[in-house]
Amino acid sequence: MPSYNAPLRDMSFVLNEVLNVGQLTKFDRFEEADADILDAILEEGAKFSRDVLTPLNVVGDHEGCVRHDDGSVTTPTGFKDAYKQMVVNGYMGMSQPVEYGGMGMPGIWHLAAGEMQSAANMAFAMYPGLTNGAIKAIKIGGSEEQKKTYLPKMIAGEWTGTMNLTESHCGTDLGLLKTKAVPQGDGSHKITGQKIFISAGEHDMADNIIHLVLARVEGAPAGVKGISLFIVPKFTLDDDGNPGERNGVSCGSIEEKMGIHGNSTCVMNYDDATGYMIGEENKGLKVMFVMMNRARLDVGMQGMAQSEVAYQNAVTYARDRLQGRALTGPVNEDGPADPIIVHPDVRRMLMDTKSFNEGARALIYWAALLEDLEKVHGDEKFVEKCDDYLGLLTPVIKGYMTDRAMQTTIDCQQVYGGHGFIEEWGMSQFVRDTRIAPIYEGANGIQALDLVGRKLARKGGRALMSLNAEIDAYIKEHENNDNISDFVEALKSAKTKLTEGTMWLMQNGMSNPNNAGAGSVDYMHMMGLAVFSYMWTMMAVTAQKAIDDGTNDEFYANKIITGRYFIKRVLPMIDTHLARMKTGAEPVMALAADAF
Amino acid sequence: MPSYNAPLRDMSFVLNEVLNVGQLTKFDRFEEADADILDAILEEGAKFSRDVLTPLNVVGDHEGCVRHDDGSVTTPTGFKDAYKQMVVNGYMGMSQPVEYGGMGMPGIWHLAAGEMQSAANMAFAMYPGLTNGAIKAIKIGGSEEQKKTYLPKMIAGEWTGTMNLTESHCGTDLGLLKTKAVPQGDGSHKITGQKIFISAGEHDMADNIIHLVLARVEGAPAGVKGISLFIVPKFTLDDDGNPGERNGVSCGSIEEKMGIHGNSTCVMNYDDATGYMIGEENKGLKVMFVMMNRARLDVGMQGMAQSEVAYQNAVTYARDRLQGRALTGPVNEDGPADPIIVHPDVRRMLMDTKSFNEGARALIYWAALLEDLEKVHGDEKFVEKCDDYLGLLTPVIKGYMTDRAMQTTIDCQQVYGGHGFIEEWGMSQFVRDTRIAPIYEGANGIQALDLVGRKLARKGGRALMSLNAEIDAYIKEHENNDNISDFVEALKSAKTKLTEGTMWLMQNGMSNPNNAGAGSVDYMHMMGLAVFSYMWTMMAVTAQKAIDDGTNDEFYANKIITGRYFIKRVLPMIDTHLARMKTGAEPVMALAADAF
Repeated sequence: MPSYNAPLRDMSFVLNEVLNVGQLTKFDRFEEADADILDAILEEGAKFSRDVLTPLNVVGDHEGCVRHDDGSVTTPTGFKDAYKQMVVNGYMGMSQPVEYGGMGMPGIWHLAAGEMQSAANMAFAMYPGLTNGAIKAIKIGGSEEQKKTYLPKMIAGEWTGTMNLTESHCGTDLGLLKTKAVPQGDGSHKITGQKIFISAGEHDMADNIIHLVLARVEGAPAGVKGISLFIVPKFTLDDDGNPGERNGVSCGSIEEKMGIHGNSTCVMNYDDATGYMIGEENKGLKVMFVMMNRARLDVGMQGMAQSEVAYQNAVTYARDRLQGRALTGPVNEDGPADPIIVHPDVRRMLMDTKSFNEGARALIYWAALLEDLEKVHGDEKFVEKCDDYLGLLTPVIKGYMTDRAMQTTIDCQQVYGGHGFIEEWGMSQFVRDTRIAPIYEGANGIQALDLVGRKLARKGGRALMSLNAEIDAYIKEHENNDNISDFVEALKSAKTKLTEGTMWLMQNGMSNPNNAGAGSVDYMHMMGLAVFSYMWTMMAVTAQKAIDDGTNDEFYANKIITGRYFIKRVLPMIDTHLARMKTGAEPVMALAADAF
Repeated sequence: MPSYNAPLRDMSFVLNEVLNVGQLTKFDRFEEADADILDAILEEGAKFSRDVLTPLNVVGDHEGCVRHDDGSVTTPTGFKDAYKQMVVNGYMGMSQPVEYGGMGMPGIWHLAAGEMQSAANMAFAMYPGLTNGAIKAIKIGGSEEQKKTYLPKMIAGEWTGTMNLTESHCGTDLGLLKTKAVPQGDGSHKITGQKIFISAGEHDMADNIIHLVLARVEGAPAGVKGISLFIVPKFTLDDDGNPGERNGVSCGSIEEKMGIHGNSTCVMNYDDATGYMIGEENKGLKVMFVMMNRARLDVGMQGMAQSEVAYQNAVTYARDRLQGRALTGPVNEDGPADPIIVHPDVRRMLMDTKSFNEGARALIYWAALLEDLEKVHGDEKFVEKCDDYLGLLTPVIKGYMTDRAMQTTIDCQQVYGGHGFIEEWGMSQFVRDTRIAPIYEGANGIQALDLVGRKLARKGGRALMSLNAEIDAYIKEHENNDNISDFVEALKSAKTKLTEGTMWLMQNGMSNPNNAGAGSVDYMHMMGLAVFSYMWTMMAVTAQKAIDDGTNDEFYANKIITGRYFIKRVLPMIDTHLARMKTGAEPVMALAADAF
C-alpha cells in the first residue's frame, strides 16, 4: 500500500528560507502568525495525512460513494470520521477571518496544509476544498447577513459547500446555462434546473450543504450577462439559523469516474428550490470567477501534490526493487541484482518528477504569499503588482502544472513496471486521480486562452512587463554569483525566449486570432518553464547562500543538483514550444472540419 | 457509447499506394495474395470490429474477468461468442502456414486485420494475440512433432496460447527466474514455480491452453544462460492428441488492473506440471526473444489502434459539442454556439493525434511488409536489410509509438472536457487500456536501452547506415519535387539531427555507459521522429503523385495537410530531445541514491 510522508524539509525551505513567510508578521493582521505555530500546524497536518488520510485513499478508490434510493449518499468507510478529526484539528478555519470563527492565519499556511491532504487523499481533500471555494464566494459577494448566517457554520466545518456551474449542455460556455430563478417577492427565488459534475454535491459528513448555484432570473438577458449566483442550502434554515426544512434540491445520481472515486460527483436536481441571491442580479459570474481563480491555484496544487506522493512511492520502489545491474558495474554485489535506482532511465523519470515537484511547490507557495500580501500590504503599487502577478500566474499554475503532473505521475507509475498497472500497488490511482486536474475548473486549453487572450493583454500588458522587470533585476543582482551562474544564464535565456514568444503573439494574434489560439498551450508551457526557471534560480541562490555560510547539510547541495537537472533537461522544451507556436494557425486549421 | 469504424481508406492508402503490398504476389509463397481477397478480409474485419467487438469493449471493461473457487475463469459476457465468430471468420490462420491449416497469406494482412481488433477491443484482441505469439515460438524453436501436435489446433483457434516469463521478483531481469524444471527421463520435465502477469492465462474460450513457460532445469547455470523454454498444456494430450488429463497448472488469482479488464491477467501456479522442452536446453531465451520482437511490433500497433479509436470518438464529439464561438467569428450562427472543432486548441489535439496515427500506421505496416519480404525474397542482401531494419525499428515502434499513444489518448479524452473523465463516455477506458502498452513486452526504458545498447551497435552499426543510405537516396530522388519540398527538407533535417545524436552516443557512450543510458529514451524518440518523417515524406510523395495525375479526391490533399502538421508541429521535438541527451549522464546521475 502506498505511503506518504509530508516533505516538511522541502516545504519549510520554500516557506521560510526562499519566501521568508515570516515577513507577514510585520503586518497587523498576521502579527500572531508565528513560525512556531506554523511548524506545529505542519507537523500535525503531516501526521494526520500520513496516518489517517493515506490509508483511506485506497479505501475511497475502491469503495467509491454510494447513492441510495432516497437520494442520500454515503462516503467511503472512514471518510466521515476523518472529516470530523480534520475539523477538530482546526483545518477549516485556519486562514479564515476571526470575526467568523476562523484563526486568521495566512492563506499560505492553509495552502501548505492543504497540499498534504491533497497528496494523501485528493478525493477527501476536495470536500473541504469545495467548502473553501463556497466560503470565498460568500465572502466576496455575500451581504453582511449572508456572511453571518453561513460563514461561521461553514468555517466550523459543520456545513460544507459546493459550486454548481456546469449543465449537461454547457461547461466552458456558461452563457448557455438554463437553470432558472423565479423571484418570490420576499427576496428569495425559486431555482429549477439540473446541474452536473457537482463535486461533494451530496454526502453524509455535514449537517447541511450550502450549494452555490448559477442560474438565470426569469427575463434576464441571454448569454453571460444574465447569470446570477444563488445560495441554495440543502436544508433551509429555521429561525435560529439551524437546518430546518429539506429544500427542493436532491442528488439524482452520482457519476462513475476514472478517478477521485472517494468524492461524490453528483447530478443535482433543483426543483423549485429556495435560493438567495449573492450580490447583484446578472452579476453572478463575476463573483464566481474571483472564487474560481483561487480554485485554479488549488488545482495546480493538487497536481503537484499527487506528483509528490507518486514520486515518494516510486523512489521507495526504485530503491527496493532489484533488477539488472548498473551499466557501470554492480553496486549490490552480494545481492542478486542492483536496485533499479541505479539505472539512468529510472533516474531520469525520478529527477523529472522531483525537479517538477520542487519547482511547482515554490511557484504555488509564492502565489499564495502574493495573495496574503495583497490583503495586508498597504502600498498601492505593491498590491497592484500582486494582483497583476496572480492574474498572470493563475492559468500557468493550473494549466502548466497539471499537464506536467499527468506526465510525472505516469512516469512514476512506469518506474513500477508491470506492478504499476496493478491497482493493488496504488500507482494507477495517482494517475487516475490526477487526470481530473487538467480538466476541471476550466480545461487547460481554456487556461491557455485565458492567459493569451485576457491576462497577457490586461492593462496594456502591465503584468508581464512588471514580472520581466523583477526578473531582470534579480538577474542583475545575482549575475556575479559564480557558483550558480548557470541558473542565472538559464533564467536569462528563458526570459528572452518567452519574450520572443510574447512578441510573436502580439504581432500575429491581432491579424488572426487563431494564431494566438493555436499557440496558446505552447505559450502557457513556455511561461511555465520561464517562471519555474525563476523559482529554481531563487532556490539555488538561497541554497548557495547556505553553502557559502558554511552549512554542512547536504540538503542545500542536493537542492542545487535538482535545480540543475531542471535547467539542463527540462527547460530545453521551451525551444520546441517556441518553434511550434511560431508556425502559427495554418498547420492547425488547414484541414476542413469534415475532413477529420 | 464509443464507436469505431475501421479507417479502410487510410489503411488501403498505406497498403496499396504507399507500400504496394501487391508486390508480394511476385513471390511463389504469396502468389494467391490477391488485392481482392485482402479487400474482402478488411471489409469483413471492419464489420466484425464495428458490430461485434466495439460493443463488447465497454462490457469487458465493466465486468472484467471472474475467477471462481475452482480456479476457472469466466470472460466477460459475449467474449466467448465473439471468439468463436472470429475463429469462424478465419482470422487465426490468415497468415499461418498452409501445412498446419493456415491460409498462408502475408503477415501484413494479419497485422492490418489485427489493428481493427485492437482498436475495437484491445482486451479481447489480446487472446488471439497471445496465441499468435505462442504459435510463433513453437514455429521458431519447436520440433517437427511439436509443430504437428500443437500448431493445427492453435491455428484453428481451438486452443489458445500464453507466454510465461515474469515472476514476482523478476520481469526485466529474467536471469533471476526461479521456476524449476526436473527431467523425468522420458523427455518430459516436471515444472514447478509461480508466474505472474500471465495474460489470457486462464479463460473459458478454448478447449486447451498451451502455456509457454521459461524455467530453469535443475543444475542449469545461473543467470540468463540457464533458462529453457517449455510447452505446458493446461490439459496434457491423450493418444489421439486431444485434451486429456488436467495438468498441474492452475490460475491462483487474477489481477485487478488499471485497464484491459476484459483480459484475464493471471497468477499461474505450476506444481509438478508436465512440460516439454522447446529447442535446446538453456537456450530458451533465444526462442523467446525472437518471438518477443514480433510481439513488440504488435504492442506498437496496439498503441496506434487505441489512438485511432480515441481519435474517431474525439472527432465526433468535437463536431457535436456546441460550446463557445470561433475566435474568427461564429460559424454556426443559427445555433446556440459553435462546434468545438472550430477552436484551434481542440484542432491541435486532434491534428497531433491524426498525424501520429497515420504516421504510425505507415511505419508499422512497413515493418510488417519487411517481415514478409524477409521470408520470401531470395536476395541475400535484401533479406539482410530487412532483418537489420526490423531489429532497429522494433524498439522504436514499441517504445516511441506507445509513449506517443499515451499522450494522444489523453488528448482525445481532454477534448471531451468533464465528460472525458466519466466512464460512461468511454474515453477513460482508451487511456486506461493504452496505459499497459508502454509497460509490457519490455518497458519503454528497456526498449530504449535495447536500441542504444544493442541494435545500434550490431554489426558495426550496419542497420542505421543502411537506413540512412536509403533515406539519402530517397531525398535525392525527390528533392526536386517542388510541391512537397518542405517534406524532403524536414526529412533531411531530421536525419541530420538523428545522425548528430548517434555520433554523440558513439563518442560519449563508450567512456561512460550512463551517458547512453541517460539519453536512451530521448534518442529513441529522435529516431521515432526521424522515421515518422520518412513515412510522412513517402505518403506525401504518393499523395502528390495522385494529385499530379489529376485526381479530384480530396483525400490526397488532406493527407499532405496532415503530414505538414507533423513536420511543422510535431517534428520540432527532435531538437529538445537532442539538447537533452547531449547534457549527458551528469544531471541525471548526480544525486546520491539516498538523497531522493
